Formats: sequence, structure tokens, C-alpha cells
Amino acid sequence: MKRIGIIVKSESPDAQALLKELAPWLRARGKEPMLDPPTAALAGETASYPKKDIATLADMLVVLGGDGTMLAAARLVEGRPIPILGVNAGGLGFLTAVTRDEAFTALEHVFSRAFAEEERLMLRSRVVRRGEEVIAASALNDAVVGKGASHMVQLEISINGQFVTRLRGDGLIVSTPTGSTAYSMAAGGPILNPSVHALILTPICPHTLTNRPIVIPQDVLVEVVLVSRDQGATATFDGQVGIALQPGDRVEIRASENKTRLIRFPDRSYYDMLSKKLKWGES
Amino acid sequence: MKRIGIIVKSESPDAQALLKELAPWLRARGKEPMLDPPTAALAGETASYPKKDIATLADMLVVLGGDGTMLAAARLVEGRPIPILGVNAGGLGFLTAVTRDEAFTALEHVFSRAFAEEERLMLRSRVVRRGEEVIAASALNDAVVGKGASHMVQLEISINGQFVTRLRGDGLIVSTPTGSTAYSMAAGGPILNPSVHALILTPICPHTLTNRPIVIPQDVLVEVVLVSRDQGATATFDGQVGIALQPGDRVEIRASENKTRLIRFPDRSYYDMLSKKLKWGES
Amino acid sequence: MKRIGIIVKSESPDAQALLKELAPWLRARGKEPMLDPPTAALAGETASYPKKDIATLADMLVVLGGDGTMLAAARLVEGRPIPILGVNAGGLGFLTAVTRDEAFTALEHVFSRAFAEEERLMLRSRVVRRGEEVIAASALNDAVVGKGASHMVQLEISINGQFVTRLRGDGLIVSTPTGSTAYSMAAGGPILNPSVHALILTPICPHTLTNRPIVIPQDVLVEVVLVSRDQGATATFDGQVGIALQPGDRVEIRASENKTRLIRFPDRSYYDMLSKKLKWGES
Amino acid sequence: MKRIGIIVKSESPDAQALLKELAPWLRARGKEPMLDPPTAALAGETASYPKKDIATLADMLVVLGGDGTMLAAARLVEGRPIPILGVNAGGLGFLTAVTRDEAFTALEHVFSRAFAEEERLMLRSRVVRRGEEVIAASALNDAVVGKGASHMVQLEISINGQFVTRLRGDGLIVSTPTGSTAYSMAAGGPILNPSVHALILTPICPHTLTNRPIVIPQDVLVEVVLVSRDQGATATFDGQVGIALQPGDRVEIRASENKTRLIRFPDRSYYDMLSKKLKWGES
Repeated sequence: MKRIGIIVKSESPDAQALLKELAPWLRARGKEPMLDPPTAALAGETASYPKKDIATLADMLVVLGGDGTMLAAARLVEGRPIPILGVNAGGLGFLTAVTRDEAFTALEHVFSRAFAEEERLMLRSRVVRRGEEVIAASALNDAVVGKGASHMVQLEISINGQFVTRLRGDGLIVSTPTGSTAYSMAAGGPILNPSVHALILTPICPHTLTNRPIVIPQDVLVEVVLVSRDQGATATFDGQVGIALQPGDRVEIRASENKTRLIRFPDRSYYDMLSKKLKWGES
Repeated sequence: MKRIGIIVKSESPDAQALLKELAPWLRARGKEPMLDPPTAALAGETASYPKKDIATLADMLVVLGGDGTMLAAARLVEGRPIPILGVNAGGLGFLTAVTRDEAFTALEHVFSRAFAEEERLMLRSRVVRRGEEVIAASALNDAVVGKGASHMVQLEISINGQFVTRLRGDGLIVSTPTGSTAYSMAAGGPILNPSVHALILTPICPHTLTNRPIVIPQDVLVEVVLVSRDQGATATFDGQVGIALQPGDRVEIRASENKTRLIRFPDRSYYDMLSKKLKWGES
Repeated sequence: MKRIGIIVKSESPDAQALLKELAPWLRARGKEPMLDPPTAALAGETASYPKKDIATLADMLVVLGGDGTMLAAARLVEGRPIPILGVNAGGLGFLTAVTRDEAFTALEHVFSRAFAEEERLMLRSRVVRRGEEVIAASALNDAVVGKGASHMVQLEISINGQFVTRLRGDGLIVSTPTGSTAYSMAAGGPILNPSVHALILTPICPHTLTNRPIVIPQDVLVEVVLVSRDQGATATFDGQVGIALQPGDRVEIRASENKTRLIRFPDRSYYDMLSKKLKWGES
Repeated sequence: MKRIGIIVKSESPDAQALLKELAPWLRARGKEPMLDPPTAALAGETASYPKKDIATLADMLVVLGGDGTMLAAARLVEGRPIPILGVNAGGLGFLTAVTRDEAFTALEHVFSRAFAEEERLMLRSRVVRRGEEVIAASALNDAVVGKGASHMVQLEISINGQFVTRLRGDGLIVSTPTGSTAYSMAAGGPILNPSVHALILTPICPHTLTNRPIVIPQDVLVEVVLVSRDQGATATFDGQVGIALQPGDRVEIRASENKTRLIRFPDRSYYDMLSKKLKWGES
């Protein structure tokens, strides 16, 4: 582990402050911090790397920010099995493993190989329009077909070529276990432990009240066809990459061959994290 | 009751078929059917009226269509206390009082004054941008501040000038009792009997799970300020009239002085209608 | 305001500690604290009063405890329009107005008439078995017909003599606005501002997913008949008073003529309280 | 497949009628119908078998009834991998494969080996009181720790020895995928496709609104300790077998080694069945 890619939530003063300490600290330990040009500027570093070099050459990523920054980092290095350490500038995140105060200790543990890697399922999606692929994208949390600027959408959902239902409402979330505590939860979906090999189909404000979230096996092809004819619907991936849909467009979603590898430490369990983030402990 | 405005869901073949019978049937009874030009064309009628004349001169409205057509009709005649008879071209609606088969009998009852009028609360809303009103609109169902094409919205909600909460998610529905079985229900809101003098604030996919629907008194001013800075959010009224919002825009919503007057017949109660539409009776 | 009834959650050490200070403090101000025998024993007071004398003679009540203690106090003085000051031994409650630290200042405000009274709707219920009333009870939060020890219940619900639906599931909650943040909320019901004149019918785990909470006008008679034939179902009032039901029993619930009068101070609004109790403010 | 155990929902006239045809029909095909004494009496058959002989000797089961009858049948033959054909006396069930009209054709397909078997996960649970097992039970749908006749329960939940949360409310459902469309769904749980290897923990009316359903891997030990001190709580298995709990009791739930084997025919898919039972297809 020599080359350490650093991804930063640039709007966060806390993340910026940590960044300035981190680059020299890494260099003092014989590591090579890899920062893209805007990050290097923030850090006051002279050397920088094109983002795609970080994606292809880094031995690990350190992410300073929140869960949104983690999602972007996961997609950046998709396909290369390198570990990602999330440092939450603010409190505790679902994806970030440690707080700002724990960052340097955590990195020392990483360099001495005292850490676990948790594999997280990713989605691989593509949008097909009149037989042609118009976009392909990966996601760690979810792929969403939503009404966007239109009034509502009508979607036809199939699993492995088998018709499931026609859904009318604000849209459909296809979520990984990782995404189950994000948008899917806000739409009424269950929590999925990341070690369950499954996806969730969570309808968004469905007109038919019995259209409930469904947990399905991971190794299937989900197809969502936009059958309503209004303009404005969108497909978005992790809420960060998106495309305007046209009537008739088909969104294909399946589990990716690639996994995100999150660095974890044994003293903080999945259920501890849920309990803290969801405030179960408080009266 | 001499002048009978007719509003039609023009895409519905059933509504069109009924329309063709209805105009001569009314004339044969000494009534004056008022149709706007496109409706007259559909009906094969030669005489037609500008829509605003129907709005200002009709003694009652007959609506052939579904609940969406009813919403548009209610807004059309807002401020004039004339009764509206909804004839559902398809099955039974929440707002339409009778089915297609019952239409002529129902009209005979109406002309012999054997009917009840049910008053329904309407909303009056306006959007204020940097101190200036940019749109004002009425609604029978709901006023919605939604994310539209943006990723999410952050809203600041006040009631009678008192801060309630900051909401992050897909948006907020301010619904009348009439709207409680429409979009608000899809978002998890309760059913409100139309004789309860109250509004519902229903959050849409809120990030904070304890942001539950709140039922508040009818005679308040609800203010919703868009505090998030992304472009794409919208305010929509009955899902039919809308405007793109800018960060900082304030949407003011209050009960209108005007009511919609729905024609009702005693043999079909509110709870019967709920039971049918929500399929409570079936095992 | 001379006679001050004191009701205490006897299991709470905090409430006990406050109680010991409160009785002498009141006497020093020329007031007559009224404690029932067990409370007097806890306080180290020699004088005590039968509970029914407190109910009939006190000019106000001070409640030291939580919302459960408030419910019991409200039922105790039902029918006599005396104000109740709730002092929360722990944090902040939905019904208690002040914290322990604020108790004496609050009482001084009360004695100098610097307070508001908020009227809260109560329910009056009775259970009728083969034409005979077998129990009558009041409630500030809710009347619940639940499965108790049986497997499930089947209930027939009417409003003002009009059939609404047959409900299968764990039961039905008929809640006041005050009760809307208690059991009804846990079962999926909306929040009702206490100034809305309405009740909520909230089904508990209904088998039919479209059986959603319904908000109905306050001035109606709700009748719930237990039609399933298993033994074990119960009717409970505020979760504190109850009776085992027999098949065919009818529970009648309506708004009471009596209101509970809660002492309130202007610096703490209803929405502040919701926000604190439901942790809306936290990220 | 010689010995055909027949299990009947004895209260159902439709099931009884079918039963009377079925026994002779089977015998005419060289099969040996196995009926317990009350069933034999219903069928007008002279020969009968003790129920435990049916459990140990039958080559397959035919169940005439609804999903409840299926649950009992599944537990009866637990541990013996024989197929079960469910014939729904009424409409279509989640567990029953065919309707009454299809019964004989279905059996002919079964005898000619033209059918599929679908394995369904079962739970194996036990209740431990002061170190001693007081009951052990299997379930195809769910194990439920509920408040029963008490006011509420407080439960401490662990997974594989790791503390998850303390839950206050009406109880907890531990459901298989099969049970996901039963009580768990009424309590707000998601649908789980039976081919997902997972369990659902669904809280029943939790006081903490963020206590959402969690989907966890199948191969874990779930422990639920009753920490509240009121009498009245219960543990029930498939809603059919139960025990009164005492404070401190620990309920242990894990996946059973045994599976239920449901007979399925290729023309009726899982999603078709969901769609019909949940009325997705209707407007």
C-alpha cells in the first residue's frame, strides 16, 4: 500500500482541515498521496494527478466527507478491488468507518494490516432506447426511475423476463443492501443487512397501496420500462449520475461483478452503526 | 338551472359517447348545454362558448371523466357557488358521484332538486419570490412543493409564522380532506373525512423518519420556504398547475374562501365510497 | 387556588425527591397540599386525603411523573374543570409542561395567574354486552379494542350508526388528538394538532393493507362490535383501565363533555414540543 | 407415491365436499388415502389412521383448506421431505397451489411427476426459562413475541450473541420469506421472495419510529429476551402454537434444518400469485 488516493468533499471545512494534515502525514510515512488538481489546490500540495490515474493506480482510497463522497469514490474505482477508508468529517455515517478524530489511528491500523474488508454489492445498469444503449452506470446505493419533472410515471417491471407489475406513482428504487438505509428507507423500504444477497424494489408513493417493497435475489435482471408518455422522467444512479428518460425507454439493472471494498474495524459492528444513526438507543 | 356547463375528459371514448347523448337530452328538457369549442366539436354540436363564459354563466357543471377532470372543473368555477355533478366514465371515483349508467337519472333528480350539496374545502396558494407574487393558484386536492428534477429539497415549514421544522426529502404535500385520498395517501397520509375542518401536511419520502403526517386546523397560514440551492424544484396545485421554484421562494398556502360544491345522492355514503375505492370489502 | 392536589409517579426517584420539597414549599406559600395516603408516606407528610377528596376538592393538580401519570390524573378529575400542571421528572413529555428544574418557577407563574390553559378532548366510552353496560370509562389518549391474548380480532366499525368496514387484525385505536402521538402513532397514525376537533381511527396491523388511519369529526358516535368468536380480546382506555371482551360485545366511543385543562406557558409551543420529542432538529 | 395423507380444514363446507370426492378418487387410482379419525368421519370413510402415522408414513400430503391449514400440515410432517399439495377451497392462497376446480388435474400431474417442488425455509424456536427449555416449536411463517394480554413489552434483541436493540412496543415478528406476506406484512414488513435466504425482524407498533423492519441472513441465531416485568406476554409460532412468557424468558429462533416442500406448477409464478392476492392488477 504505497499510493493513497484521497477524495474530499470540498465544501466541508472539516474535510479540508483534515486534508491539509493528511498529505504530509502520509508522505512522512513513505506513502504517496494522490490528489486530483482541485484537491491538491485545497491541500496546498504542488503535485497532482488526473482523476483517472487515481482511479487506476491507487492502492487504496481515503475518503474525507460523508456518505455521498463515499458513493462517488466507490464508482470511481469500480472494477479494481482496492479498499476504501471513509473518514466522516462530521459525525458517523453509514458508509464511513471512522470519525475525524480516529483517522490517523485508523490509517496506522490499515498500514499494519489490522483491518477487515467488507464487500458491498454494486449495481450495474444501463438505459436502452429503441434497442440502443444510451447510458451505462454503476451504483453502490441505488438505481432510481423517477418522475422527475413529470406528474407521475407508469412503469412496467419485470424480473428475469417475467412480468411483475405495472406501477403508477413517483417511481421505483432498486436498492442494494447498502442503499437500504438511504433513499429506499425514506420511501418505506426495509433495512437489509449487507451480508444478505438481495436487492430491494421499493416503490415511491405508489398509487396502489398494496405495492409494497419486495426483496428479491441478487442474481436477477430487473427491467423497468417507462410506459407513461409524459416528458420529464429520469433514471439516476446513486442520486449522482442521471439521464432524462423518454417514453418507451427500458432501464436494465443487475448486480455488478464488481464489489466495493469498505475498510472496517472490529470494534464497531453493523448493528452499533444502525443503532447510532437511527437513534434507537435514545428514549 | 338552465345553463348546464359540460366538461369532458376528451381522451375517454366513454366520456365522448356519453357527451353525444347528453347535449340533445338536455336541450330536449329545455336546458342550454354550454360546451367549449373543442367539446362542441367532439359532441357534433354547432354552438359553443368560450371557456370563461362557461365559468361565469353556467348554473351547474356536469363533468364527464374522472377525478382529474373534476379537479380542473372545480378550479374553473372557483368563487361561484354552483354545484358540480361528476359522472365517472369508468368505474367509481372519489369525486364523481355517479357512474355513466346513472347519469341521466341523476340529472333528473338534480333538476327536481332531489340532491344534496357537499361543500369541499379548497386551498388558495401563492408563490412569493423576493417579495413579489409570481403565481397564485387554487386547488381542491393539494398544493405540493416537490423536488421535481432536482435531487432533493430542503424546506422550512412554518404555521402562522411559527417555525415547525426543516424538512429534507422529496417534498411536502399540503392536502385538503378531499386530497387525502389522492397523492397524500400515496405518500403515507391518513384519510380525512371531508367534514373535518383541517389540512394535512404530508412529507414525501422524508430523510428523518419521525417526520410524520400532521393534521392541522384549517384556518392557518402554511408557509414553505425552499432553502436548498439546487435548481429543479416545483410547486404544483392539484398536480395540474405548476411553477418552477427558485431557491428562497416562499409558497404560502391557506384555506380558500371559496368551496367546491359537489352534488351527492343520499344512497351512496362517504364510507361506502371509501370502501369501494379502497377494496375494503374484499377478502 | 388554595388546595393543590399532588399526584406522583411513585416508582420515580426524581419524582419522589421533588415531592419532598414541594409539600413544604407549598405550605410556606399558604397553600394546602393534598396527598393521598401512599403519597403522604413518600413525602414524609402526616396529613393525607382520600383520593376521591383530592378529585373533588383540589383547585388544581400538580403531577410529578411522565405522560402516563398525567393520563391517570386527567381521568381522576374528569368533569371538574381544574387545571393540571405536569412536571416531567425525566426529560420533556408530550403532556407535561415543564421539567423538574422549572417546577417552582412554573408554580409561581401559576399562582400569579401567568399561564394559559389548553383544553384537551377526552373520550367517554362504554362496553355493552347483550344490551347491558358492563363498564364505562374515560380516556385522554385513546380507547383501544385489541386482540389481547387471542390470535386476531374481527371488528365491525360504525360511525353514527352507519357501517364503515369490517376490520381484521390486531385491533383498532380510537384516539384523541392528544393520543395521536402515543399508541396511534406507533400503529402508523398521523399527528393531530390538539386544536383540530377530530378523532382518529387507527387500525392495528390490519390484514387489508388499504385499511388506513381515518380522521373523523369529533362529534360522532363510534361503535366497534367484536364479531370474531375467540376469547381473549380486550377494551382498554388510556392503556390503564380495561376489560376482557366477549364475542358480540359492542364498544361505544364518543367525545366526552368534559375536557382536560393543561397548564401551558407561552414560551414552549406545540411544534417545539413535537420537534424535541420526535428529534426533528437532529441531523 | 402410494400413501396420500389428507389434511382438511374441517369448518369449510367446500373442503368437506372435495374431501368426499377425493378419497374414492384416490383409491380408484390405486392410492391409499390416509385420514385421521375426525377427517375419516367427515369423509364417510371407515378406515382411519392416527395423525402421527400420517406424519410418519405418508408419501405426500394433500391439504384442503387455506393457508392456515397449510401451516399446520407443514409442521406436522416437518423433518420428512415429502411434498405438500395445497388445494384452496375458496380462492387462491399464498401457500395453496391450486383451486378446488384444478385439484384432480393437479393430482394427475403429480402422479405422473409433472410438477416442481419449491423448498421453503422453516424456523426452529425454543423458549428458555432460567436455563431450561420450556417449549420448542417449528414454524413455516413466523415466530412472534407479543404483548398478549399485557400493556406492552420491552424486548432485548441479539443476533449471533451481538446486541442489536431494545425494543418497546407490541412485540417482534421473526418471519421467514413465506411469512413475509402474512402477519409481518400487516405490521409493515417487506415482501421477501422465497428464494432469498433471509429472515425478517419486523417490530410490531414500536414506540421508537426508527425501529424499522430488518432483513438479516438466514443462518443466524436470533435471541429475544423479555425484559419488561408485566405478566401476559406470549411467544407464538405460526399463530397456532404458543406459550405464556415470564419476565426474563429468552426465545431463541433460528432456521430449521428442515424445509417444507410445496408442490408447484409452472404456469403460475410467484409474482402472478402476489399480483392476484394483493390486487396489483386492478386500477
